[in-house]
Amino acid sequence: MKKILTFLIPTLLLSGVASAEVSAETAFVFNTFLFVFSGVLVMFMALGFAMLEAGFVRKKNTSAILLKNIALYSIAGIMFYLIGYSLMYVDVSGWIGSLGGAFYNPSADELALLDGADNADAISDTGYSVASDWFFQMVFCATAISIVSGACAERIKVWPFMIFAAFMTGIIYPIYGSWTWGGGWLTEMGFSDFAGSTIVHSVGGWAALTGCLILGPRSGKYGPDGKISPIAGANMPLACLGTFILWFGWFGFNGGSQLALGSALDAVAMSIVVVNTNIAACGGVVAAIILSQLMYKKIDLSIALNGAIAGLVAITAGPDLSNHFLSMIVGAIGGVLCTIAIPMLDKMKIDDVVGAISAHLVAGVWGTLAVGIFGGGDFLVQLIGIIAAGVLVVPLSGIFFFILKGTVGLRVSEETEASGLDKAELTTEAYPEFK
Amino acid sequence: MKKILTFLIPTLLLSGVASAEVSAETAFVFNTFLFVFSGVLVMFMALGFAMLEAGFVRKKNTSAILLKNIALYSIAGIMFYLIGYSLMYVDVSGWIGSLGGAFYNPSADELALLDGADNADAISDTGYSVASDWFFQMVFCATAISIVSGACAERIKVWPFMIFAAFMTGIIYPIYGSWTWGGGWLTEMGFSDFAGSTIVHSVGGWAALTGCLILGPRSGKYGPDGKISPIAGANMPLACLGTFILWFGWFGFNGGSQLALGSALDAVAMSIVVVNTNIAACGGVVAAIILSQLMYKKIDLSIALNGAIAGLVAITAGPDLSNHFLSMIVGAIGGVLCTIAIPMLDKMKIDDVVGAISAHLVAGVWGTLAVGIFGGGDFLVQLIGIIAAGVLVVPLSGIFFFILKGTVGLRVSEETEASGLDKAELTTEAYPEFK
Amino acid sequence: MKKILTFLIPTLLLSGVASAEVSAETAFVFNTFLFVFSGVLVMFMALGFAMLEAGFVRKKNTSAILLKNIALYSIAGIMFYLIGYSLMYVDVSGWIGSLGGAFYNPSADELALLDGADNADAISDTGYSVASDWFFQMVFCATAISIVSGACAERIKVWPFMIFAAFMTGIIYPIYGSWTWGGGWLTEMGFSDFAGSTIVHSVGGWAALTGCLILGPRSGKYGPDGKISPIAGANMPLACLGTFILWFGWFGFNGGSQLALGSALDAVAMSIVVVNTNIAACGGVVAAIILSQLMYKKIDLSIALNGAIAGLVAITAGPDLSNHFLSMIVGAIGGVLCTIAIPMLDKMKIDDVVGAISAHLVAGVWGTLAVGIFGGGDFLVQLIGIIAAGVLVVPLSGIFFFILKGTVGLRVSEETEASGLDKAELTTEAYPEFK
Repeated sequence: MKKILTFLIPTLLLSGVASAEVSAETAFVFNTFLFVFSGVLVMFMALGFAMLEAGFVRKKNTSAILLKNIALYSIAGIMFYLIGYSLMYVDVSGWIGSLGGAFYNPSADELALLDGADNADAISDTGYSVASDWFFQMVFCATAISIVSGACAERIKVWPFMIFAAFMTGIIYPIYGSWTWGGGWLTEMGFSDFAGSTIVHSVGGWAALTGCLILGPRSGKYGPDGKISPIAGANMPLACLGTFILWFGWFGFNGGSQLALGSALDAVAMSIVVVNTNIAACGGVVAAIILSQLMYKKIDLSIALNGAIAGLVAITAGPDLSNHFLSMIVGAIGGVLCTIAIPMLDKMKIDDVVGAISAHLVAGVWGTLAVGIFGGGDFLVQLIGIIAAGVLVVPLSGIFFFILKGTVGLRVSEETEASGLDKAELTTEAYPEFK
Repeated sequence: MKKILTFLIPTLLLSGVASAEVSAETAFVFNTFLFVFSGVLVMFMALGFAMLEAGFVRKKNTSAILLKNIALYSIAGIMFYLIGYSLMYVDVSGWIGSLGGAFYNPSADELALLDGADNADAISDTGYSVASDWFFQMVFCATAISIVSGACAERIKVWPFMIFAAFMTGIIYPIYGSWTWGGGWLTEMGFSDFAGSTIVHSVGGWAALTGCLILGPRSGKYGPDGKISPIAGANMPLACLGTFILWFGWFGFNGGSQLALGSALDAVAMSIVVVNTNIAACGGVVAAIILSQLMYKKIDLSIALNGAIAGLVAITAGPDLSNHFLSMIVGAIGGVLCTIAIPMLDKMKIDDVVGAISAHLVAGVWGTLAVGIFGGGDFLVQLIGIIAAGVLVVPLSGIFFFILKGTVGLRVSEETEASGLDKAELTTEAYPEFK
Repeated sequence: MKKILTFLIPTLLLSGVASAEVSAETAFVFNTFLFVFSGVLVMFMALGFAMLEAGFVRKKNTSAILLKNIALYSIAGIMFYLIGYSLMYVDVSGWIGSLGGAFYNPSADELALLDGADNADAISDTGYSVASDWFFQMVFCATAISIVSGACAERIKVWPFMIFAAFMTGIIYPIYGSWTWGGGWLTEMGFSDFAGSTIVHSVGGWAALTGCLILGPRSGKYGPDGKISPIAGANMPLACLGTFILWFGWFGFNGGSQLALGSALDAVAMSIVVVNTNIAACGGVVAAIILSQLMYKKIDLSIALNGAIAGLVAITAGPDLSNHFLSMIVGAIGGVLCTIAIPMLDKMKIDDVVGAISAHLVAGVWGTLAVGIFGGGDFLVQLIGIIAAGVLVVPLSGIFFFILKGTVGLRVSEETEASGLDKAELTTEAYPEFK
């Protein structure tokens, strides 16, 4: 369409050619719908985390973890609206955005269009609707804090956790996001993280690690003689349900991160991303099953489930690989690293209830580095991005956790931990008839 | 593209303009796909209700509530095909449609297209396929009766409930629907209900209220001295699962109610609706959590879950607000009203097992009024529409419930209630190994 | 576009007409997105099977069935990538494909497009992206093996099952697939199976039947005097959850099998498929409920759930019927046949834990024949296709099961069966706190 109108016959031919392309407004609809469709899938991942975590905690803490999960998603939705999106994307200085886009709303042009203005062409040139983009970004923010709730489960107080969730989704995640997807210094350096192995999963993982260190392990998990007492999750079907929902939602997480669907190129790229996402998870599951059999002489279901998540996290930084086999390998290595990390953390007496640090932080680091090995990223820059996430998130979340600890308190009392959070902090037992 | 080619042939002009816009056939595909996509999400809400209700009933009535839920969706699907859609949309007199569209099927033109006729242009002008629209409308009808099953759980007989479901989805819902979305007298008066706070949720809520009043409370719920004995639900993870599924499906419920996706305007509008839907639910959750803490000194998980639903119901009448902050407020007020209504209904000895009347009727009334406050609706007309729903649904469902009571019976015997519906009316216990 | 340019003015007019059509590139995006969207829904059916099966087994075998389900999906994803897709679709001789497409990857043209080549038009002419098609085909392959895991549950060893899953998804399913969707001899004969009543569901069902025959029934199921002892599933909410998820996913299974969305015709056809899919399931549920009431004097929830699945399986061969009422009848007959088949299999001492043979094989045979009655298929050819599936799958899977039996063993020991697979083969109990 760009070379149009030099003289008549070519115009006609071009007109014919034009009909082989996607009009700007059609592309706008495709792009906007991609964000909505993918955002809805990623929103569903909040349920995936809720079910996974409800499966891995004990009966007595189940209502509390469910409450934390629906609360954190709601808090993320509000905080990212109030300030988070703005700090991440609006007038980014390189190190942080501004508050100029706080209380983010549709653009004036869009409101004019809805009011009857004849500006569909101008709107179409923006590529996608403001709300669709905001929605897609918001659900990513919620994912980051979902990772924290599982690791810190069974001993963190409900209200302090919710306050932390507001800080994480309003401040911490947006700052690191501004360095990267917001166009800040890491992006300028060439850091490459397609859908957020580091930006979402490692950031969440670093905060989870910090929380676990400050909270300390659950009572009874590590004996004085170094003996590790596994604490079994109460409901494996829920954990499996959660894992499959995460896998399902991940097609939106990675597929939507193509950020466009308005051309054959974007459609090709997006479907390649979907296939890589899937096969990396398959690789993670199979690798984790084989390794758990070798390590424990039996298959461990929770390791297999975490293998799927680790495979998904690992491919998230670079799901645009043109060779699906490589994606399977990236995912399988993610599954292996996660399976190895779980007992290593236990040896370090870091008590992660659901394996979130292993699946999200360890596999996230691996996936981000893998872009420097198999993908188009620079290994050193990838490493800098990874380190930057830790250097930002650990102190910031640590200071905030300590403030909470020194004021409202962070960890429940021993009695509450023994009797369960459901009775002490909630009115609602999860399974009152199943004694 | 609009200012192009003033000196060339008008045909070229049209050709040029067209290529910047969405072609009629492309729009047809978008619109049809929007209905299918959204309809599939709303269909999934039937599972949301099933899980929510299975979580809130006791073990002994769990299989019965699951059976009712899959049955009611199936009955709705058949009744709406046989007569419901036709009574709601075909040749609406103002007060009811006709049976001219009973056994609704693809149009003759569509069948000709499938048989090879060259009428794609004419089909495209209809905007969307007949089947996609029917599907989208049908899943809304199923939602209305889903609301009833939860409120009346644990004491309504299975077969009479299924007969009522046929009446509700074949007659009651379509009549009120014809007054509104069918283009009848309420629409002519200016009643505004974008996706059905009243048309779906209040209608379902009125029938639920009527059922609860006629059935009476569950045995043991209200003592002779006015003492209220809370009856805890058996499985909170299921209730949480159901709530998240409802939230997920609601993006189709409200987003699809834009009814079109074939232009930048529709894409913008639809994504605004999605964001408002989400943030209203967030507001509902946070408000309900805070209020439950204030009221009970502890957080109540079931109130938080109902807060999400109430927020969603509240925004459903007007999710096209251009300011997302207002949507959050509308949702938060919905959450507050629902949280207050739950104990108020208990004081009136109205025993609603899952909080459906509070979440769907109370919040639905609020949301419909809110359109008269924040949106483009007329407050008085909104009020008339709300009252009309009650005036239609309460007597109609009441009479039908009484007919059932006087013939096949409506409520299970005391022995059945004590031992549970699963054993008495079904062959299947829900958790036979969990004694 | 085909009749373009015979002479000038009509060309202009046609150019105008063309702008009412869908451009090739727009159609490419629609088609590709349809595959991704539908594939994601079908992927979710893997969770549906996992939950259904976890609901129908006993507590002690729950982790094992969950593990089998996530493992089989992962194995299918890898095997179909390595060889399955190629054997099914690449250079099909009539009886089998080749290994020329092993390690299936994006096309060279697609990779060139991603690298900046100006070949979007040529790509658009291919109709859809390679990866999207692969993904959609892969999830169908996974469905076939999902059917086997449920039938053979509670006594098949985990590792041998996983090896069988690799054989089924890499060899058996692709061979029959090549005869049909791959364009082989059955397609040449005129066999018609829209979305796979036979190709997916009967093939899975035949393998399930073979497995059940070779494994023998669970200990205690059939007494020496012919007495049948029903073994109740542990968790009916999970079974209901699984069924609804399958129903939800089936909209992608059947709707996506239209294989295109880039025209009004395809949009109309796809939405008709969606409506027929839904109403067939409704018919299956209602028929199964009524029949279970007549047969057992009470409603059986598990029969109602299987009625939904049987209705879905039955319509899958021909969901393009132009009369929705007929689809309801096809689904209802599927529900009836399934309900009758379940006790018949028990009389033959074929112990199918979840009813998979009744719901997938019996209803699949019926649905395939129904295309020869109500649809456009030839009854005799349909029958040949059905028989061919049995003649291929039963010996092939039987021989493989026997090889496993004679080498690594197929069935767990009596002690393991008594104590449960979770303890013996896995480290993970499903419900450790619910004794």
